Amino acid sequence: MKSKISFIGAGNLSFHLANAFDLAGYTIHQIISRNENIGKNLAKKYSAFFDINPENIAEDSDFVFITVPDNFIEEIVKKTITTNPCFVHCAGSISLSAISNYKTDAAIFYPLQSFTKNRKLNYFAIPVFIEASNNLAYNKIKNLANDFSNQVEELSSEKRRILHLAAVISNNFTNHLLSQSEHLLKKADMPIKWLKPLLEETVSKAFELGPEQSQTGPAKRHDELTINTHLEILQNETAIKEIYKIISEQIKAKY
Amino acid sequence: MKSKISFIGAGNLSFHLANAFDLAGYTIHQIISRNENIGKNLAKKYSAFFDINPENIAEDSDFVFITVPDNFIEEIVKKTITTNPCFVHCAGSISLSAISNYKTDAAIFYPLQSFTKNRKLNYFAIPVFIEASNNLAYNKIKNLANDFSNQVEELSSEKRRILHLAAVISNNFTNHLLSQSEHLLKKADMPIKWLKPLLEETVSKAFELGPEQSQTGPAKRHDELTINTHLEILQNETAIKEIYKIISEQIKAKY
Repeated sequence: MKSKISFIGAGNLSFHLANAFDLAGYTIHQIISRNENIGKNLAKKYSAFFDINPENIAEDSDFVFITVPDNFIEEIVKKTITTNPCFVHCAGSISLSAISNYKTDAAIFYPLQSFTKNRKLNYFAIPVFIEASNNLAYNKIKNLANDFSNQVEELSSEKRRILHLAAVISNNFTNHLLSQSEHLLKKADMPIKWLKPLLEETVSKAFELGPEQSQTGPAKRHDELTINTHLEILQNETAIKEIYKIISEQIKAKY
Repeated sequence: MKSKISFIGAGNLSFHLANAFDLAGYTIHQIISRNENIGKNLAKKYSAFFDINPENIAEDSDFVFITVPDNFIEEIVKKTITTNPCFVHCAGSISLSAISNYKTDAAIFYPLQSFTKNRKLNYFAIPVFIEASNNLAYNKIKNLANDFSNQVEELSSEKRRILHLAAVISNNFTNHLLSQSEHLLKKADMPIKWLKPLLEETVSKAFELGPEQSQTGPAKRHDELTINTHLEILQNETAIKEIYKIISEQIKAKY
């Protein structure tokens, strides 16, 4: 029989993990959430038990996924008395010790993706980075990860936080650039969707040729005429202008 | 019979435009380039005439595409004596007047994409923004653009330069962020390709939900614990640290 998985936390990540593990034949055993409404809804979907209190975690769980915000992980782990299940967290920047200091079997399951409720994702294509406090826990989390993704890698806590940082820079910051672009376009009554084929090519090219090879644009060409035209357009856009100046200087210095 | 198209300039853009127009049944008539090697190669591919001197532009061309670097466009236009063909440039930040001050029929054909030689592109999905100095030139360039792309929009020079700026911010700057991420990962012996599914989702989500809705990450959550961990990792990475600080501050101020 496949393992029973419980969750402490019922946000976007639990939503997707429960969905993927259920599809892979696992039992979603218990959902614990401070938010009764969201937690009960998720539990209902998989006929799982619901509880509001982490102290009541089901001891007969095989895995307990702690999917609360990063700064509550350790506190929640401390509150749960049982040491029976393998305790797991999914945070990029939190060390394994946040669990392994308190539990025998501790593991990391870090899926490198940005999760939004109700958005369809191809789970098998998401790389998952694992780590564990002992061989038993390692084998358990490895088997589970292999049923979720076709790219599972062992990674230390130290490397994982660098990977998380790189993910923040490329995902969150790119999204901010798109948000700033949308602002400029909106003001001139143009839709952001015009940029979509370009951005798809940006990503496709960067991963095919490597980003260093793929760099183009006025800053790379040291085209001061265009850079000055752009800075002139941005004269009342302090935030975007600041980013424009710094990144252009960095690209110019590099090429 | 379909029109004859000549090019002054034989770089990445001419490479792709000649390919697309040839596929659409147009005649690639003449290639003019200072670089004899590259120019002759491109001409040969389409059995076109080659010349090194813009003054020798074939008067029986229907369109002359000026695909030289931005700051040479006006100078090249001045050098060509004929006013017979419709002269066209493709630059985001150069006004129509760089041509229309000297030629009767002037037009803009601005394909919003980043062109790299030998990379396959789906031309029909690339939005093309057009503008012309008179109705005749407008209809000519519109017909041509419709044979290239299924998204052709009329756009003023003023709006085009804002669109170009937005494209630089989202394409060139995103590529720089990816380049910085690669640097961090390489130093810790991790491959950039691990970020690919994440970036594909970043772009897909931003264009589906809108970038403002899609923003996630430690800065949005005001998660100072993670931000400080990241800044600590970056203590010897002056350039990335500068970007990290500024963009995080901007996201925090926004949400």
